Amino acid sequence: MKNILGRDIPDYIEGYGSVKHFEGAFSNYGVKEKVGVKVSTVKPGEEKVLNSIDEALDRLELKDGMTISFHHHLRNGDFVLNNVVYAISKRGIKDIKIAASSIFPVHEPLVEHIKNGVVTGIIANYISGPVAEAVSRGELKNPAVMMTHGGRPRAIESGDLHIDVAFIGAPTADTYGNINGVYGDAACGSLGYAVSDAEYADKVVAITDNLVPYPASPIEISQIYVDYVVKVDSIGNPAGIVSGTTKVTKDPVGLKIAKMAAKVIEASGLVKDGMSFQTGAGGTSLAVAVELKEIMKKKDVVGSFAAGGITGYIVDMLEEGLFRSLFDVQCFDLKAVESYRNNPKHQGMSGSMYGNPHNKGAVVNNLDVMILGATEIDTDFNVNVTTGSSGVIMGGSGGHSDTAAGSKLSIVVTNLIKGRLPIIKDRVTTVTTPGESIDVVVTERGIAVNPAREDLIEELKKTNLPVMTIEDLKQLAETMTGKPEEIQTSEEIVAVVEYRDGTVIDVVKKPLE
Amino acid sequence: MKNILGRDIPDYIEGYGSVKHFEGAFSNYGVKEKVGVKVSTVKPGEEKVLNSIDEALDRLELKDGMTISFHHHLRNGDFVLNNVVYAISKRGIKDIKIAASSIFPVHEPLVEHIKNGVVTGIIANYISGPVAEAVSRGELKNPAVMMTHGGRPRAIESGDLHIDVAFIGAPTADTYGNINGVYGDAACGSLGYAVSDAEYADKVVAITDNLVPYPASPIEISQIYVDYVVKVDSIGNPAGIVSGTTKVTKDPVGLKIAKMAAKVIEASGLVKDGMSFQTGAGGTSLAVAVELKEIMKKKDVVGSFAAGGITGYIVDMLEEGLFRSLFDVQCFDLKAVESYRNNPKHQGMSGSMYGNPHNKGAVVNNLDVMILGATEIDTDFNVNVTTGSSGVIMGGSGGHSDTAAGSKLSIVVTNLIKGRLPIIKDRVTTVTTPGESIDVVVTERGIAVNPAREDLIEELKKTNLPVMTIEDLKQLAETMTGKPEEIQTSEEIVAVVEYRDGTVIDVVKKPLE
Repeated sequence: MKNILGRDIPDYIEGYGSVKHFEGAFSNYGVKEKVGVKVSTVKPGEEKVLNSIDEALDRLELKDGMTISFHHHLRNGDFVLNNVVYAISKRGIKDIKIAASSIFPVHEPLVEHIKNGVVTGIIANYISGPVAEAVSRGELKNPAVMMTHGGRPRAIESGDLHIDVAFIGAPTADTYGNINGVYGDAACGSLGYAVSDAEYADKVVAITDNLVPYPASPIEISQIYVDYVVKVDSIGNPAGIVSGTTKVTKDPVGLKIAKMAAKVIEASGLVKDGMSFQTGAGGTSLAVAVELKEIMKKKDVVGSFAAGGITGYIVDMLEEGLFRSLFDVQCFDLKAVESYRNNPKHQGMSGSMYGNPHNKGAVVNNLDVMILGATEIDTDFNVNVTTGSSGVIMGGSGGHSDTAAGSKLSIVVTNLIKGRLPIIKDRVTTVTTPGESIDVVVTERGIAVNPAREDLIEELKKTNLPVMTIEDLKQLAETMTGKPEEIQTSEEIVAVVEYRDGTVIDVVKKPLE
Repeated sequence: MKNILGRDIPDYIEGYGSVKHFEGAFSNYGVKEKVGVKVSTVKPGEEKVLNSIDEALDRLELKDGMTISFHHHLRNGDFVLNNVVYAISKRGIKDIKIAASSIFPVHEPLVEHIKNGVVTGIIANYISGPVAEAVSRGELKNPAVMMTHGGRPRAIESGDLHIDVAFIGAPTADTYGNINGVYGDAACGSLGYAVSDAEYADKVVAITDNLVPYPASPIEISQIYVDYVVKVDSIGNPAGIVSGTTKVTKDPVGLKIAKMAAKVIEASGLVKDGMSFQTGAGGTSLAVAVELKEIMKKKDVVGSFAAGGITGYIVDMLEEGLFRSLFDVQCFDLKAVESYRNNPKHQGMSGSMYGNPHNKGAVVNNLDVMILGATEIDTDFNVNVTTGSSGVIMGGSGGHSDTAAGSKLSIVVTNLIKGRLPIIKDRVTTVTTPGESIDVVVTERGIAVNPAREDLIEELKKTNLPVMTIEDLKQLAETMTGKPEEIQTSEEIVAVVEYRDGTVIDVVKKPLE
């Protein structure tokens, strides 16, 4: 069965189940159901604080086959996932499914748990490092399920992803389970990705290294969702949480691309009062923010909001009055954490509010301009940010598909050639984001506009920007690199790529060595 | 059938349905289900702003028999309920159920809609004024259902109270439905009672007189719950919203009672660091706050939180450092609104977080001391705040039952005699709050302690406070007033009084003239 993007997807995938096929970015709206929730009520006088993860596991009656969830706000400094899974493994519990919003190199111990059958499933929006490699090698019993930052809360809220126990790393928690991310040694700012887990899991455990007297202030996740609070020594290494390494590129090629992208934005007519903007935290993407800032200042434009994972660069724009507000689903650096803590205009948002296509309108729906990265792009403008040039998983959508679908103008910024390989291909190895939601690709050698955007092609013709067809752009790259060899894969499906609406947009097959 | 309080309640009530009988304040916990929710998803590019209530009614396909909901944060200044019901009545729609968190004298136009069959049901936590009188006269087709501030969100979240359309008066709303109560001509502060309506109604309409560009800041109710935004000229009369009339009593009897209540609190041993406190907005109740403040200052005590409907007196205590935080479900005066707008320690809470017994622990569960009013108290310590001395409805629980159940020490403060009638009776006309959750009754002539609180009786014996049995206190009143005549009622049930857990604790029968 080929789906509408020509991807070869079976109707049933062993270890995943029946496939709902992708039918277009905007085909799956209408009335949707949020699932009911079981709540273990708490009487006056009952207490929630437990002394250890083990005590929590006792109370939770954790069993073989359960699904447990984690958020990724502690990123590559996270101790919570590893410590919980270790405690589970010591009890001889098997067949656990890990629903983590993202998985990082720090979660390398999972590889061993995958090998010995403690962990048999992974559901995540982004997977990098040793776990991604293990999944790619086919070591996980069931295919990993790759979601998006908006698709994950959709799956949780709809009941597609049922969580038995959510373990929420809490930089600050009070004795009754009120949580915030802005104080404590592991302060990470917004806890947006943990909200649906708290609201919909059968049981919710806050794990904190900063237990404060009742009540915490501020409260990002309320006591009404939390069953237990566990005090531990440390939930994470601050150096891995907010590293301060999100920096504008110094590479002249990246800077050139950013300048070109900014000119595209300007030519689009979207730079005007009330405009909204989001960019990823990659060096070139951040450079676009810096360029846009100058254009906004020159034009004396005040935007409505910037959104997403927030960096200090975006905080600067808020503080300089270039946006009226920020919507923050995760803080990428300390400056963002500080601003989120202190500035009421720097507002938090849940993953659902950020990107869930099945609520009454996510923040991405109101985005004007989105700056995206890419590992590969094909001539249908489909983008791959899931697998690398060898076919191994090295990331995932995160908010890529969500923001591409929601924004009026989605721009992929990328070098035309990376590691001697052309970025533009006839066919991407994996479709993360469908081409219909990508408007423009900006490379240092040329700019390609999605033919569906005739209006934008017209506007760009009035500039001196090097606009060409995507086929010409591909040709240009191939004259320099030659035509790359296709990645060879086995027929074994190691990961299922879900679009934000829960349909399957692609699968990742095990690459041949 | 008599329930455990000896109240005569049938198993089935016409126009209400099958009765779940009250079985004790803490008998109905365990695992509870929150119901699923239908969501009409919103695609990028779709807009939410409508030009009139009529346009909203067109879109909503409002039909005979539906349940529509309102919050009461605009109190006696509210225009929203009247305007919506008027628009509905003009369309010839009948048999509408009004689920309003409270109903005030300003809602007098409902009486006409009740008479002509537009409105056939009322579900509210508090009803005063002409509507209460009409209900008491038996004019409403079905018995009114009286809930509590915590019971209402419980009913909504469990599906016991299904709302077809929630109309949310919004002092500020943006074009995509983000709402706050802190800006605009009708600023009322916290919107806590509207939260469950927004989360669980099939359709949600924000009605605002202060439509601001996207995004609003702060956001109390998110865009992800709101279908439409309607701009109107005015949602309410500020003079009726926050009247500034919540004042400490000047009556010497009230002040004496307050001093005695404060001494009871002191004697209980609860005045210590971390203590928590709530009081109603009645003049005597507020006077207790003033007394307590002095005791806390003298003892150099810093409390954890004060909660509830918040007044300027409680704000003062926060600002003087006597509490670390406030939990605010509604602001009673302008000083509270201002503090809620500006002070991050002055935190909002939803009605569910405030008092729902069927979440994972409401704020009331952590209350140490609660100061309550009463219309009648009986020798079992049952309290009536639902009906007046003539048997006519003049209020309702509000948060009375919720806070009484949650707090460690619940104190009723009241004059022993009001309007020449004794407050303490053999049997209250209507049980609003069960005696098992009332600890102490303080009157100017004596203090009665619930016999279940032997510990407290022991402590109070060490003071010079006039402690006596509730029977003696009743006797004392009756020596002055004589024994009052019992209210004569017909057998017609005009209102069903639900305890916070959804069981029926009592019914109101139509009083005979």
